Amino acid sequence: MQDTVLDQINISYKDLISFSTEILMKVGCSKDEAEIAAIVLVEANLRGVKSHGVARLKRYVDDICRGKILPGKNPEIVQETPVSAVIEGHGGVGQYISEFAMDLAIKKAEISGVGMVTVRNSNHYGIAGYYAEKAARKGMIGFSATNSAPMVVPTFGKDLVLGTNPIAFAIPCNEKNPVLIDMATSVVPRGKIEVYERLGKTLPEGYATDETGMVCTDPTKVLHNMRKQIGGGLLPLGGEGEQYGGHKGYGLGLMVELLTGGLSLGRFSPDTYKNTGDMAHFFMCIRLDLFGNEKDIENHIKGFLDVLRNSKKKDGEDRIYIHGEKAFELRDELINTHISLDASTTNSLKELATKYGVELNEN
Amino acid sequence: MQDTVLDQINISYKDLISFSTEILMKVGCSKDEAEIAAIVLVEANLRGVKSHGVARLKRYVDDICRGKILPGKNPEIVQETPVSAVIEGHGGVGQYISEFAMDLAIKKAEISGVGMVTVRNSNHYGIAGYYAEKAARKGMIGFSATNSAPMVVPTFGKDLVLGTNPIAFAIPCNEKNPVLIDMATSVVPRGKIEVYERLGKTLPEGYATDETGMVCTDPTKVLHNMRKQIGGGLLPLGGEGEQYGGHKGYGLGLMVELLTGGLSLGRFSPDTYKNTGDMAHFFMCIRLDLFGNEKDIENHIKGFLDVLRNSKKKDGEDRIYIHGEKAFELRDELINTHISLDASTTNSLKELATKYGVELNEN
Repeated sequence: MQDTVLDQINISYKDLISFSTEILMKVGCSKDEAEIAAIVLVEANLRGVKSHGVARLKRYVDDICRGKILPGKNPEIVQETPVSAVIEGHGGVGQYISEFAMDLAIKKAEISGVGMVTVRNSNHYGIAGYYAEKAARKGMIGFSATNSAPMVVPTFGKDLVLGTNPIAFAIPCNEKNPVLIDMATSVVPRGKIEVYERLGKTLPEGYATDETGMVCTDPTKVLHNMRKQIGGGLLPLGGEGEQYGGHKGYGLGLMVELLTGGLSLGRFSPDTYKNTGDMAHFFMCIRLDLFGNEKDIENHIKGFLDVLRNSKKKDGEDRIYIHGEKAFELRDELINTHISLDASTTNSLKELATKYGVELNEN
Repeated sequence: MQDTVLDQINISYKDLISFSTEILMKVGCSKDEAEIAAIVLVEANLRGVKSHGVARLKRYVDDICRGKILPGKNPEIVQETPVSAVIEGHGGVGQYISEFAMDLAIKKAEISGVGMVTVRNSNHYGIAGYYAEKAARKGMIGFSATNSAPMVVPTFGKDLVLGTNPIAFAIPCNEKNPVLIDMATSVVPRGKIEVYERLGKTLPEGYATDETGMVCTDPTKVLHNMRKQIGGGLLPLGGEGEQYGGHKGYGLGLMVELLTGGLSLGRFSPDTYKNTGDMAHFFMCIRLDLFGNEKDIENHIKGFLDVLRNSKKKDGEDRIYIHGEKAFELRDELINTHISLDASTTNSLKELATKYGVELNEN
């Protein structure tokens, strides 16, 4: 952390996209690469997923500067059938490659009913939900998953052998927004541990482990051990051992490794960042009318969502959420107002602004 | 519980299949229906999933006798494309319908690369993993999911609006057995609560809730409330609220509802058992060679499994399991020895043996 005055700023999402696009172009991205990366980053801010928002812009710039992300590389289709494709990313910009891959899955589904695309040698692709949602906006089921840098221990283990490996599933439901499930298969993302460290709070038991593989509530120790790969890390969804289903979260994380690094003959999470970022993704798109009239299916689903919403609330709660609702409601609000960036993110953007001579327009 | 002497027996898996088949034929199942249902039940015992084994045989018999399961009904394909089908189960035997559905998905994948089959108006289909594994044994990815009787509360809710909604994922890996992930999307199945009740133990916090929607550690109260639908039930994977990702387990359960009851225009979990059992399933099969040479992919996956197995163990543990290993190892052992049935299961089988005049051969 630099010795800079920290303060937070408010900024419109459009200005934030423009700023991020300009910065990425300064370090060698084409306009297309920069714009899609900026859009996906800011979409995360709009949905309240700050860990995947412009807080990562500096990391992207650093990764470009040290040759982990290679701007100017176009995704290459190396194998293809009417329902599938494999894409070699050549170490390019993750969002640019992934937009291409999901669009290809959508095109295949439009013709063949279903499209599945695996990607190897890509980079961090932002929020998984962005890609799944694209399919749902076209009236189809969307699915997206990625591996990541290694951050998660398997059940009974203490090495970082899995990524946080998010999966996203989206389906249209005759409402303004689709159902959108977007979840890491770890119990929490690393960013959450960092928040506890910043606040000087101890971690809830069940988030992370230490070098013995036992539960650890000291965020500084956990983060230090993870960086040095001394042992311990984030626990899979379901927590430690098998009592609360930690082996299930581990299974979901494993499934993601096999669909991404496995099917693409790419790298698994422990081998990412050895050369380029070298992440692997999986995208799927399924046309609803394979199974009946699309509107009938959407209305049938909407009926069930209303059953969920109208079911009895736990004492003290007044709402049962459908997945995606919180994010889309926040998005609507922030689009019409502004995005508030915390001090640390503001500082990193100001550094970039100064270094690359790009103006950061506050609201 | 009847006033019968309880004791446990050992029995060979073959005798257990024969016995279960004969019993099911006595109550009206065809030989084909009875055999597949018996095989899937005993497969659960062989894998150590006692809750889904022959402990359920009496429930199946009861469901047949009260018209919830209708033997003699053939699954009907009501919609079909080269990559998909929708099956109307007409309230028939769940395993018989599901075997037909997964075989159809496999056939479609053999021709088109991928096959997806949704099923409505079926019944309890046993262990999800049985069907996913079938595809993997043919060298393909298998996926299976089902909704169920309502037993799970959503995050912030207290009504039973979701089933335990298991998902199973299987993929070949150039080893004797495929990777086989088979997991309820609830933190535990109802059977686990029943075990705590039998043992007179309190539940770990995070398994279930009571009529206020708050965590409850009294298994008798939880089971009573669930039966009477007074409020509370099993928690989704990740537990109560959002702190440990309970909304993720809720999301996975919702995804299963939408792939099963949703796509098939069938019933969702809260509406099962209103007429027939009326459950809905989803099956998918994907050919590996869509993405490259099958053997290359399998070997690549095997390499990662070995990385997992050989990674450092948590203090006090000596093995990291790949999903499916525990079940397959137990299966090998029990096939060569016998299955031990607990007293309560033995008693229920002896009742059936007496009532229907079928001999139960102990080892």
